[in-house]
Amino acid sequence: MTSTVLAPTDRNSGTPAAHALLDVLVGWGIRRVFCCPGSTEAAFLDAVVERSAEVELVLTTHESVAVAMADGAARITGQPQVAYLHTNVGLANGVAHLTAAQLGNAPVLLLNGLKSTALQGRDGFTTVPYPRDTIRQHVKWARQVTSADALAADVARALRTSVAEPAGPTWIGLPQDVLESTAPAGVAPETVRPVDVPRNRPDRDAVADAARLLAGATRPVLVAGGDVARHGAVDALVTLAERLGATVLGEDRRGFQRTAFPTAHPRFAGWYAPTHPAVTAADLVFFVGCRVFTEFEAPVGDEFPRHATVLHAHVDPTEVGRLHPVRLGLVGHLGAVLDDLLAALPPNATRATAEGGSSPAGIGGGSAQGGSVAAGAPGSGVRPAFPGHVGLGAVVAALVDGLGTDPTVVLDATTATPALLSALPQHRPDQVLLSSSGSLGWGAGAALGVQLARPGHQVVAVLGDGSFQFGIQALWTAAHYRIPVTFVVLNNGSYSAVGSALHRFGGAARRTGRWPGTDIGGPRIADIATGFGVPATRVTGPADLAAALRAVRDTAGPALVEVLTGPGAPS
Amino acid sequence: MTSTVLAPTDRNSGTPAAHALLDVLVGWGIRRVFCCPGSTEAAFLDAVVERSAEVELVLTTHESVAVAMADGAARITGQPQVAYLHTNVGLANGVAHLTAAQLGNAPVLLLNGLKSTALQGRDGFTTVPYPRDTIRQHVKWARQVTSADALAADVARALRTSVAEPAGPTWIGLPQDVLESTAPAGVAPETVRPVDVPRNRPDRDAVADAARLLAGATRPVLVAGGDVARHGAVDALVTLAERLGATVLGEDRRGFQRTAFPTAHPRFAGWYAPTHPAVTAADLVFFVGCRVFTEFEAPVGDEFPRHATVLHAHVDPTEVGRLHPVRLGLVGHLGAVLDDLLAALPPNATRATAEGGSSPAGIGGGSAQGGSVAAGAPGSGVRPAFPGHVGLGAVVAALVDGLGTDPTVVLDATTATPALLSALPQHRPDQVLLSSSGSLGWGAGAALGVQLARPGHQVVAVLGDGSFQFGIQALWTAAHYRIPVTFVVLNNGSYSAVGSALHRFGGAARRTGRWPGTDIGGPRIADIATGFGVPATRVTGPADLAAALRAVRDTAGPALVEVLTGPGAPS
Repeated sequence: MTSTVLAPTDRNSGTPAAHALLDVLVGWGIRRVFCCPGSTEAAFLDAVVERSAEVELVLTTHESVAVAMADGAARITGQPQVAYLHTNVGLANGVAHLTAAQLGNAPVLLLNGLKSTALQGRDGFTTVPYPRDTIRQHVKWARQVTSADALAADVARALRTSVAEPAGPTWIGLPQDVLESTAPAGVAPETVRPVDVPRNRPDRDAVADAARLLAGATRPVLVAGGDVARHGAVDALVTLAERLGATVLGEDRRGFQRTAFPTAHPRFAGWYAPTHPAVTAADLVFFVGCRVFTEFEAPVGDEFPRHATVLHAHVDPTEVGRLHPVRLGLVGHLGAVLDDLLAALPPNATRATAEGGSSPAGIGGGSAQGGSVAAGAPGSGVRPAFPGHVGLGAVVAALVDGLGTDPTVVLDATTATPALLSALPQHRPDQVLLSSSGSLGWGAGAALGVQLARPGHQVVAVLGDGSFQFGIQALWTAAHYRIPVTFVVLNNGSYSAVGSALHRFGGAARRTGRWPGTDIGGPRIADIATGFGVPATRVTGPADLAAALRAVRDTAGPALVEVLTGPGAPS
Repeated sequence: MTSTVLAPTDRNSGTPAAHALLDVLVGWGIRRVFCCPGSTEAAFLDAVVERSAEVELVLTTHESVAVAMADGAARITGQPQVAYLHTNVGLANGVAHLTAAQLGNAPVLLLNGLKSTALQGRDGFTTVPYPRDTIRQHVKWARQVTSADALAADVARALRTSVAEPAGPTWIGLPQDVLESTAPAGVAPETVRPVDVPRNRPDRDAVADAARLLAGATRPVLVAGGDVARHGAVDALVTLAERLGATVLGEDRRGFQRTAFPTAHPRFAGWYAPTHPAVTAADLVFFVGCRVFTEFEAPVGDEFPRHATVLHAHVDPTEVGRLHPVRLGLVGHLGAVLDDLLAALPPNATRATAEGGSSPAGIGGGSAQGGSVAAGAPGSGVRPAFPGHVGLGAVVAALVDGLGTDPTVVLDATTATPALLSALPQHRPDQVLLSSSGSLGWGAGAALGVQLARPGHQVVAVLGDGSFQFGIQALWTAAHYRIPVTFVVLNNGSYSAVGSALHRFGGAARRTGRWPGTDIGGPRIADIATGFGVPATRVTGPADLAAALRAVRDTAGPALVEVLTGPGAPS
């Protein structure tokens, strides 16, 4: 094979195994491959030329963008998506955002072009001795294909593993010699046929116990996690909340991945926090499809409502009781869990419906949280707090005002997140998407993936200026393919999460008002975007933000609006 | 400790262990820390506030830039440099460029802020179960510090390990609780004292045998590897070449890291290739301080000159005979190897000096290689080749014309590399720096590190447009600190290495002239740079390039010149 590859002659001696790869992807309904290629992927790229009617290569100029796009598209469709990365260095560049896909349970298949098998044992160019070491703690399954005959089956297994619950990323290493091999590689029918993902159902006795506990609770709180949306069970959770007259909170924002409950619903009362009035007053807390918890900082464990009866429903049995023993666990697909619970609720539990008009405890707690992180820790009045975003409330209000009636918003703006989560419209599942990975830059690429999966729908990425720089290469893909995402960059010229941490630390930085590692001011972000071919505007405050957003709402391609939110900005 | 950290009060109850870390770094002469911080590093950042006279934080807006800067500074100084990255995601973002430091034997210490120990066992925010898995195949030593008492000793050991031969990166994981701990952490005197790196010397009998073989060869070829420069042994190699009347080649460009022989010297004859006339005619080939080899693509092994007597000198015993048995290996620091060899050469070997004026075999081979990759594979006349850079020869000539008399040039322009390597002035060691990692984007950051280590000296980064996007965040650091690097971007609007690979593959792409995954045109790179605060110019061809470079030669801050080298550009 190899000498054929190197010879500058026409290739006419057989079909490379790359076509078997495409057979599997196309069979699974995959129409796009998000890619940042190198020379090792030539056989794949060449096969795409021949089969451009079946599959589109979506080019990115950094692997992190390819991964985030696949993640965004996978989250919004629930279907597997493919990112194709180049060798060890390309894989490394994709890892940080892959952690977002992992935490968001996005079925992303990472294909990774590797140098030919013969080079791997010789420390060849762009090889590492142990490719799987780079990736294995970030995927459900990792396999380097060892022969053309095994390629289709390995890729199909990776796809099946990605979509199986709990869904998540997988990795397939594709050595160049395998991909280029023209050995007869049989593609078995089962490899090109997508599977129905089986649903697990909770234990019948556990459901009965849970229904009795829920019906007997006087001040129940339901905590809606992202998996409720991912499993298409939001309506069922709304029904449960109404029947129980329960207060509903969104999951703690550290674990927030996607809108899982309509925030305008009368039973919704903000986001989970151990100090939330509904939580402190609750006699029962039912965590539904969320992690308990994604802890941010020591001391640990203080978020758990020990005073209440705690129930936890999750599709993954290892998540139930992972950090805290709970009274009762319901392991199952959340559609099944909620359907079974609703069926098992005693009729008298429906009495609560009549009381449903009463205001749930702590309503408005969500809004009250808005901007609290940006404003610094409580009790910071003596020393000057790190400024963070200035006038954030007004900016967020203008942002909401300028958006359309039903946008999907991807958030990647660290310290502005609480205010945005509270203010953005969240009428329907997945309306706001977020990563709990801490990997800055994810949002720009993820929004592009969401937009491709939802053509004709308004998709907005709200980014901090730090995140903007991390994800900047997404602008190239947005411009090249004219993907009509609107990027909004809240530019406060600083890593304000670092500033807040220094403030909390309470040392010399706070004493002197010097904040090393925080000043990232200077860039004219709108000018940079224009250089990339994305039409852009800089506005200096909320007064112009809404108008700027309205002006670009119906443009056919991407647009960017930069709004200054730093100390010098008008508030 | 932890509750103190979280309390928003002044910290006045002891000195955090972060100061012990600074004690070690400062003791080792480290005055800068290249950093992209997050909240876990607050104690370190705070300590920097108090000790700003001793150490400077150099902020970057992507971890890859911090790593490349440390690498550039480490290569040019030979002294250890420090990059400080944030948690699992920041570490992942630094890995690709760390492979460059690894291959370039740069003593880079990666400090990696980790979440508090208590969170690591609880899948906390930005944690992974096995942090070392991400990094261990890229470093000589990897250790997560487990207590404040061990911090200084662990960091000192990492520094000693980094500078020991063969030099290379090390990793220290620093949990937040350890860094913030105010437990009395003793800093032993030996941890704050840099070491002299011991030199190994080759076996005396081996030296005698090598000297005899060299003296007896009639057409010897010396292949000068980067370690000759790294070990300060270029003058000794020049002397050896002159005494032997040997032809000198630079190491194969796939392994090239740094200028290791003056290319204008009469004995220099281009770069190593198995087909080079000097190699095919040689009866002895002596590889000095290079890898044998960094292979790019199968078939493997064909680069080795089996017809000749082969000697290999390297500081690392595992490099000698790694892929190919050699007649004789000389394991040692190259200064020692060459000094010993010169002393052991029989007096009659100096006869060759008198013949030194004769032209070495194959001179000009280097220039002949120029542009060969960009021009497509040989025999490509029948089908249209992928265009790559157009008029590259003239552009490179204009580039050389526009540079000052003694620039240091960092290359990161994949397909233009052969032409640049042949044409750029290489009078002195380390004048041209390159990475053999294949990690695009390294050059921009590396040039900044070189410039900081060589203030007042002209440093130029020559980048492809693909590499420009990968390393774009370096512009922020260049602008913020006014680091006077000149960036030259050869913008051909394409991943031409991918195009060349598709051409070599000889399939549908070549047949149809469609090259998927190659078109990255569109960005106005000069405008993007201006948006970052780096003054920039776009020129359309060689005629204006030299003038544009002369115009920015003596500016006090960074500058960028974009030159169009794509098919549409004037040639």
